[in-house]
Amino acid sequence: MTDPRHDPAARGFASDNYSGVHPEVLEALSLVNGGHQSSYGADVYTAALEDRMRHLFGEHVETYPVLTGTGANVICLQALTDRWGAVICAETAHINVDEGGAPERMAGLKLLGVDTPDGKLTPELVDLRTAGREDEHRAMPQVVSITQSTELGTLYTPEEVAALCEHAHSLGLRVHLDGARLANATAALGVDVREFTTDAGVDLLTFGGTKNGALGAEAVVVLAPDAVSHLKHLRKLSMQLASKMRFVSAQLDALLTDGLWLRAAGHANAMARRLADGVAGLEGVEVLYPVQANGVFARLPQEVSRRLMQRYPFYFWDEGAGDVRWMCSFDTTEDDVDGFLDALRAELAH
Amino acid sequence: MTDPRHDPAARGFASDNYSGVHPEVLEALSLVNGGHQSSYGADVYTAALEDRMRHLFGEHVETYPVLTGTGANVICLQALTDRWGAVICAETAHINVDEGGAPERMAGLKLLGVDTPDGKLTPELVDLRTAGREDEHRAMPQVVSITQSTELGTLYTPEEVAALCEHAHSLGLRVHLDGARLANATAALGVDVREFTTDAGVDLLTFGGTKNGALGAEAVVVLAPDAVSHLKHLRKLSMQLASKMRFVSAQLDALLTDGLWLRAAGHANAMARRLADGVAGLEGVEVLYPVQANGVFARLPQEVSRRLMQRYPFYFWDEGAGDVRWMCSFDTTEDDVDGFLDALRAELAH
Amino acid sequence: MTDPRHDPAARGFASDNYSGVHPEVLEALSLVNGGHQSSYGADVYTAALEDRMRHLFGEHVETYPVLTGTGANVICLQALTDRWGAVICAETAHINVDEGGAPERMAGLKLLGVDTPDGKLTPELVDLRTAGREDEHRAMPQVVSITQSTELGTLYTPEEVAALCEHAHSLGLRVHLDGARLANATAALGVDVREFTTDAGVDLLTFGGTKNGALGAEAVVVLAPDAVSHLKHLRKLSMQLASKMRFVSAQLDALLTDGLWLRAAGHANAMARRLADGVAGLEGVEVLYPVQANGVFARLPQEVSRRLMQRYPFYFWDEGAGDVRWMCSFDTTEDDVDGFLDALRAELAH
Amino acid sequence: MTDPRHDPAARGFASDNYSGVHPEVLEALSLVNGGHQSSYGADVYTAALEDRMRHLFGEHVETYPVLTGTGANVICLQALTDRWGAVICAETAHINVDEGGAPERMAGLKLLGVDTPDGKLTPELVDLRTAGREDEHRAMPQVVSITQSTELGTLYTPEEVAALCEHAHSLGLRVHLDGARLANATAALGVDVREFTTDAGVDLLTFGGTKNGALGAEAVVVLAPDAVSHLKHLRKLSMQLASKMRFVSAQLDALLTDGLWLRAAGHANAMARRLADGVAGLEGVEVLYPVQANGVFARLPQEVSRRLMQRYPFYFWDEGAGDVRWMCSFDTTEDDVDGFLDALRAELAH
Repeated sequence: MTDPRHDPAARGFASDNYSGVHPEVLEALSLVNGGHQSSYGADVYTAALEDRMRHLFGEHVETYPVLTGTGANVICLQALTDRWGAVICAETAHINVDEGGAPERMAGLKLLGVDTPDGKLTPELVDLRTAGREDEHRAMPQVVSITQSTELGTLYTPEEVAALCEHAHSLGLRVHLDGARLANATAALGVDVREFTTDAGVDLLTFGGTKNGALGAEAVVVLAPDAVSHLKHLRKLSMQLASKMRFVSAQLDALLTDGLWLRAAGHANAMARRLADGVAGLEGVEVLYPVQANGVFARLPQEVSRRLMQRYPFYFWDEGAGDVRWMCSFDTTEDDVDGFLDALRAELAH
Repeated sequence: MTDPRHDPAARGFASDNYSGVHPEVLEALSLVNGGHQSSYGADVYTAALEDRMRHLFGEHVETYPVLTGTGANVICLQALTDRWGAVICAETAHINVDEGGAPERMAGLKLLGVDTPDGKLTPELVDLRTAGREDEHRAMPQVVSITQSTELGTLYTPEEVAALCEHAHSLGLRVHLDGARLANATAALGVDVREFTTDAGVDLLTFGGTKNGALGAEAVVVLAPDAVSHLKHLRKLSMQLASKMRFVSAQLDALLTDGLWLRAAGHANAMARRLADGVAGLEGVEVLYPVQANGVFARLPQEVSRRLMQRYPFYFWDEGAGDVRWMCSFDTTEDDVDGFLDALRAELAH
Repeated sequence: MTDPRHDPAARGFASDNYSGVHPEVLEALSLVNGGHQSSYGADVYTAALEDRMRHLFGEHVETYPVLTGTGANVICLQALTDRWGAVICAETAHINVDEGGAPERMAGLKLLGVDTPDGKLTPELVDLRTAGREDEHRAMPQVVSITQSTELGTLYTPEEVAALCEHAHSLGLRVHLDGARLANATAALGVDVREFTTDAGVDLLTFGGTKNGALGAEAVVVLAPDAVSHLKHLRKLSMQLASKMRFVSAQLDALLTDGLWLRAAGHANAMARRLADGVAGLEGVEVLYPVQANGVFARLPQEVSRRLMQRYPFYFWDEGAGDVRWMCSFDTTEDDVDGFLDALRAELAH
Repeated sequence: MTDPRHDPAARGFASDNYSGVHPEVLEALSLVNGGHQSSYGADVYTAALEDRMRHLFGEHVETYPVLTGTGANVICLQALTDRWGAVICAETAHINVDEGGAPERMAGLKLLGVDTPDGKLTPELVDLRTAGREDEHRAMPQVVSITQSTELGTLYTPEEVAALCEHAHSLGLRVHLDGARLANATAALGVDVREFTTDAGVDLLTFGGTKNGALGAEAVVVLAPDAVSHLKHLRKLSMQLASKMRFVSAQLDALLTDGLWLRAAGHANAMARRLADGVAGLEGVEVLYPVQANGVFARLPQEVSRRLMQRYPFYFWDEGAGDVRWMCSFDTTEDDVDGFLDALRAELAH
């Protein structure tokens, strides 16, 4: 049953966070309700989630459920830096452009952005920011932060992540992976998630649930426990400690049950693929980056986009250039994509 | 149906956040699910919540749903202070002792704690911290922060709040009210909530949902919009902006539907009253503060508490002194209280 | 008389802060010594400095002596920003690359760097960073920060500053001018300093003394008092409040006596000019930027530079590229320059 | 020669920072002038100071000259704390009441103030703040900060410092000593400074020069190098790195030459003693704390103080109570004290 104040059939391509909660996640919230459980994470569902994460990433990992992606990232970056530390990231990284300056404001961090062709760092690009890194006049780079899948819908291969980690570690830097869309990356790469995380040398990652069908649940997963300490304190002082944590953990636990996280993300990826295939060859539409996860970036006439947005909400990525972003979600249907393509073709012919 | 991994009948007196989600709140989460809605608050349920809050606190109030009580408080304090500002609060205030230093760490605030007999500030106590407040060598007091109901289970009368606000305003200070248990206070005072908030002169408050049956939902409510600005930015940079906000707003909306917030809190208060009445006159148990909301603070022999905790979880407040805190929740039953009293009596006679 | 532990004839081209204190400044320190004076700025010499600054920049300006250039800049940027604010600056700006992350760490500021050809911002370059500036997901640009003369030894004309200020103000942004080498700029432009500061629309500037013959003295000068408030508090909490401030003020007062600031800076500029003229046409040496103040940036073979550094200390600016920086100071002599040119020619012919 | 704008004979009892620069310090500034020296501390005078400090405190100590006492303290506290750390100090500590909130604002630190009878912490008082120190809901005490001599003019004996350090270390806490008046303490105790610092177990201290005849020079001295790291970075990002550092180091070097630091401080102490002896037994004047260094705290009728302040500037410490502070300096003369006592007696008899 749905509240009549909104239309349960309304769907667009604005963001994967426009969607609601996956039914299997919602059901989990009911199941773990009732009775008293210790708050702040000392409950059986958080323990169960920790087990699942160990199964997924390795026996030694630690898991800290949190509430927002920004919070998750800022906790990680604080954990990996000293007061004099800085973070190397792509200029387009979410931490750099979409978190309201939280890393600087809340954690006093300096971000050292690097221009990239496709949202992906490389050892060579990292080197642009590491010269003179012991100089007290500079903020000292201590972390390389990557996003997988990236903000531009692209993917690092396991080999690329491993090369970055090896390079970072050789310089004494740690590696953080923003995994707000880790599930999309894992489903798309078709490999064990460990291949491009633990095994590749990533030290700390965020495991995103919200964009993949959770109500609001992320986790900080410590892959290299020797790299950090006192995550519990950092989570609390970063205002990300949920009191009724069983309900946060249960969302992630549900995603990790019966492979839901990969089913949901794989479906979103497939819809983006279908959309990209549909626009291929359309006169007046240029796809900007390889479509490797659940987002399609395209350039088309602004007026076409503006008319199209009336029926299918989506955002300009760079309005001046006519660049737009189309995101697919776990609940995007083939009909949604096909209807959108029809409308696009009609508007292009307008 | 309940997941077999926990016992839905297990209840104690450890904290109102040991309880789960009120069934009416849980149902609301289902109802607002499905379809796409604009994220970050541009959805119909957030708009509906804003309406309810205007109805509750006045036509001019603004509402910003957030995720944790600590986050809510730190947003408020940032909104009310300049970079040189400080906050006068009770030494026992949650912001001072239970938020991991978040106000200092995340917002650079200095808290000026004042010893109080019962967790409550008075104009005279405020004056202990306002001398020389223009002096650049001091952090400048700009806010008086009170908690209602207090961390010690006590209440300000509307007149007491009004006197504090008048005094604070006469000094050029603003008033923040930490309302993590605002519902308990409102139910206990039996007055319109506006009497001790908007009408009393409070500038900014947090409206707590989590301890009163929500899954995880609080709100910053701006009662004096001229006092602050850019709350949206402060919420984002404070890492408290939920993407799928409809689900946060829906929790608070459900609490405000059919008076659920007062039903739930009033019941918790009544259970605390029942508990306090039950221990009155018990040899070896001293109730420490007036029991005015949903918490009972008592002093009793440590070993009695330790044995009792095995069956009914609760916390020492000051272990050395033998002080304990017993909290009641929306789901505490009369049988829970009576069973606990029986056990207490038995342990005292042990 | 000089302490035998160092050679008073040793001079190089490493930095204008390798030089000592101008004799007229040193004498001023003696003259203001003796007796008790109110500390923290309530002394006659600070009042005298304030008068001089009003004479220089306008009747309404306010002056706050401080101790370091980094401190001066961070105070300015805090004064001009809200907690959600950001600062647009050249990627090469001192605040961005040479202050150890102090703006981020101490003030929670996000710096939005822009690549420039010559260290200078333009309205068009500013526009690269102002799109979507009301969006809560971005740190909000509130300040344009320029340096005069720039870190690359170049100058803004008064018209260029005015155009930037007009553009910034039209967007609701304020303008900060890092004047660590304001004297060099003023002497080089040969105009009244007011033309490219107060009259051009700059809101707040730092007035550098240390690089121009002071022992350690800078000032924050507020040109638009309506733009800021509580500078005294910001100076104190930024750890830049000197107790015996008469000695800081006296240094700046001495620089402003009999035009010493322009004599000293003009001489340094002339020496840089002489140096640039000397290298013009030398095979194997390329001057990188227009030499408009007291610094010369050049590209030459690294091994030549390395050998030359043995006798005349200076720094690589970009070691990989062979770029070096040669700075002239108030005490650089014509013989120093000519001797250096001789040595350079010899090394090139090596 | 003195600038005619101030009276070199004017002296009062307002603060030891109302005085000017000791002639031996001023001369040192001349001696180290001339020629170029590496900036930021790579000069011979900073090296010489480091030698002196090793001689004073032990072969393993490290020395970092800085510019203000607030800066020195905040650097120390940052060095000794993690992001989740807190600092236990006397409620009256300078860091708590006189630094404009710099520790909170600049370093995100929480200070845990303790009421003391005389400005001095004890192991028992420390214990009031260490309960539950591993709890993530609390800021974790990691440092005990003491002041020697204290803000109330009292002294810790070497044994008292040792007991505090032993207790702090047993709890895993480090000890910071605010030595803004370390010279006064050393002269007053008549012991080797090492006895109540290095040998007593202090980890990090600030060595004050400014209040003892310097123009503006303090140092952070690391007694336990294993306790901290990257002080150079912390100094820079805390905006306390002087470019022409030879002049800062030379001031401290001059103080440590021929025992000037103890001569100057010992004289100030003797003047305070003379003043205290002079008021002993005066009807209407009560000395509030043991006079052990260079300050006398007294209670007397406010109107007497107000009249007396016209001729001899000094400050109320607590105006409501009639409490005042009289500070003596290196340049206070016996005639100053005797003249002040005459005036006091006259005003009391008024």
